[in-house]
Amino acid sequence: MDLDPSGHDAADPLAPFRDRFSPAPGVVAYLDGNSLGRPPAATAERIAAFVRDEWGARLIRGWDEGWWETPTTLGDRLGALALGAGPGQVVLADSTTVLLYKLARAAVAARPGRTEIVVDTRDFPTDRYLLGGIAAERGLTLRPITTDPAAGVTPSQIADVVGPSTALVSLSHVAYWSGWRADMEQITGIAHDAGALVLWDLSHSVGSVPLELDGWGADLAAGCSYKYLNGGPGAPAFAYARRDLLPSLNQPVQGWTGRRDPFAMAPGYDPEPGVRRLLSGTPPVLGLLPLTVSLEMLAEAGVDAVRAKSEKLTEYVIALVDARLAPFGVTIGSPRDVAHRGGHVTLRVPGARELVTGMQERGVIPDFREPDGIRIGPAPLSTSFTEVRDGLAVLEELLSAG
Amino acid sequence: MDLDPSGHDAADPLAPFRDRFSPAPGVVAYLDGNSLGRPPAATAERIAAFVRDEWGARLIRGWDEGWWETPTTLGDRLGALALGAGPGQVVLADSTTVLLYKLARAAVAARPGRTEIVVDTRDFPTDRYLLGGIAAERGLTLRPITTDPAAGVTPSQIADVVGPSTALVSLSHVAYWSGWRADMEQITGIAHDAGALVLWDLSHSVGSVPLELDGWGADLAAGCSYKYLNGGPGAPAFAYARRDLLPSLNQPVQGWTGRRDPFAMAPGYDPEPGVRRLLSGTPPVLGLLPLTVSLEMLAEAGVDAVRAKSEKLTEYVIALVDARLAPFGVTIGSPRDVAHRGGHVTLRVPGARELVTGMQERGVIPDFREPDGIRIGPAPLSTSFTEVRDGLAVLEELLSAG
Repeated sequence: MDLDPSGHDAADPLAPFRDRFSPAPGVVAYLDGNSLGRPPAATAERIAAFVRDEWGARLIRGWDEGWWETPTTLGDRLGALALGAGPGQVVLADSTTVLLYKLARAAVAARPGRTEIVVDTRDFPTDRYLLGGIAAERGLTLRPITTDPAAGVTPSQIADVVGPSTALVSLSHVAYWSGWRADMEQITGIAHDAGALVLWDLSHSVGSVPLELDGWGADLAAGCSYKYLNGGPGAPAFAYARRDLLPSLNQPVQGWTGRRDPFAMAPGYDPEPGVRRLLSGTPPVLGLLPLTVSLEMLAEAGVDAVRAKSEKLTEYVIALVDARLAPFGVTIGSPRDVAHRGGHVTLRVPGARELVTGMQERGVIPDFREPDGIRIGPAPLSTSFTEVRDGLAVLEELLSAG
Repeated sequence: MDLDPSGHDAADPLAPFRDRFSPAPGVVAYLDGNSLGRPPAATAERIAAFVRDEWGARLIRGWDEGWWETPTTLGDRLGALALGAGPGQVVLADSTTVLLYKLARAAVAARPGRTEIVVDTRDFPTDRYLLGGIAAERGLTLRPITTDPAAGVTPSQIADVVGPSTALVSLSHVAYWSGWRADMEQITGIAHDAGALVLWDLSHSVGSVPLELDGWGADLAAGCSYKYLNGGPGAPAFAYARRDLLPSLNQPVQGWTGRRDPFAMAPGYDPEPGVRRLLSGTPPVLGLLPLTVSLEMLAEAGVDAVRAKSEKLTEYVIALVDARLAPFGVTIGSPRDVAHRGGHVTLRVPGARELVTGMQERGVIPDFREPDGIRIGPAPLSTSFTEVRDGLAVLEELLSAG
């Protein structure tokens, strides 16, 4: 691969999108789009307009003019655009942690008599912590699998551990550390053969890799909207539940928003038949506004074009590391095979924490991940090849300066 | 009380605040500040500036520059200003429903062997639904009390039902329907004498009536920030837990944000010793911005001045109803004694639903509440006495037109 970025940028059909993001003065390279996506420039005004023209001018009437349905109207849009999910299966609400909790609780209740939850010991902490809590409170057992740190979960690992005791398998689709992309379709099939459900954390997938939840037979999924979806710091999350599972899913946080005919304020909880049964509290309408902007941009770009650029960006990261950084002891902690790779690449190098600090002081922003990871997450809509080259050049300078 | 509003407005020390809210063209009277508070005009630009200058320009570095601590820094500010709570006891996160769930679960776990949860059958639906769910999943029993619809829970009602079986008493401080203001201090004392904990829903109290959670010996509380706190539609909620209870409070939604040293991403959940143990997912930083603006305004006005005007506004509502609407069969569904009244007044009248529709068509916005309630919630910072008069005059017109 050509190490000169100019040709890649010139050939990049998504290059014009980069100028549509809010400027970041002094930032030489933002390589952390997989942690917090940049805001489109239109986002600030979109929110301000909402505050003035909807919240401020429509006031309480807004609830009858679309706000109340935001979790599902926006959920359907996200589902169609980025999840491969037909309507009526996606909501936006809460945080990823809370939605994972609700889905996991509903899942184990839907598999009574089964006693095990399969969990990846290298999964993102929230997933591990919450499943540990659920196992303890429901009298279940965690069945841990330990994945290759530079790769991730394989179908054969799942085949080895699932069986008649398995209630739920909980996995990340793209691993937060290595960027490994799991084979959702095959793993789901293996779990289904054992009668188990699978819950996918899509936080590092959505908006970066194409997803076909319906097509792959997925059961349950949740994820974050502030990474590749540019939803803003701490934005609400999304949850997916396959339509035919919904009647059997009873999540424990029974609030008025998940109840049938909520404004009747009637006695007793009677969940909505549809996907709104996953909701609990009042829809976070204002917090979801940035997502409305970025979904429009994603629709314009197209998820396939996003993935095509992402593949090339991560390939370029690997080529630069091999050519320029390997001599300093930097190795690739991510899959080299693009078929197994998500949208980010983690470099492994001793002193990673200090190197990331040095990079940040020079306007280059990747992420440090314990113990020795420098995570490079170029966002296809906002990151150029030149930016990647400039960012890694700073790392090279730091390494060569010792 | 003088039915002419002009003198009241002229004497109102908070009158200048009204012009600092975002305009609502065509709205004659907004009488629903207890459902959704109006945005200060400064809110739109504050959010836009955050998107440009913090999210957009600081990017991921913002998490180290105060964002991560937002739930507690803003929580402490809210606690000092409006809750009577010392630092380290309040977080902002999630929704009211999710926080009530976490607190109630933690509370019943902190009272092992006790089997009952006392619940008000007229409490807001979310509170009833979620306690029903918790009772079912934890093998507990709901001990219902039924309050006077035009009033609310009394200390003697609680004294009648609490005992050695009571784990938790869950109540609203100000009733969503009647506006009854419970005696938190006395009820808490009665529950404590029985060894039980009390969880208060402050959604209709906060920013409207003075609260002294520390002084009243409160255990646990949660509430909404989009009513009198002007946090915007679906804004994150707040939770309070008394400092000395924290070590015994284990909430079930174990996420990375509630863990000690979260970025170590270590195995096993080990909750933060302090109030952050109530957190689960990534802090909703962007969704909390409107609250930062309105808390500044509330600090400037002072909660005591807010309450003083609120008392006068609700007194004025009652006086107008008695003088002008009672002949049409309108009665007061709220406490007439200001000592028992929160910040809103509910009128009872046959055909309330249709009357509210008619009022809205004429630019007057109250709330309809099943079965016969027209809820009038004047927000002291944004509502004038003239507005109240004009709004109720429209109701009078509708009634006199039959």
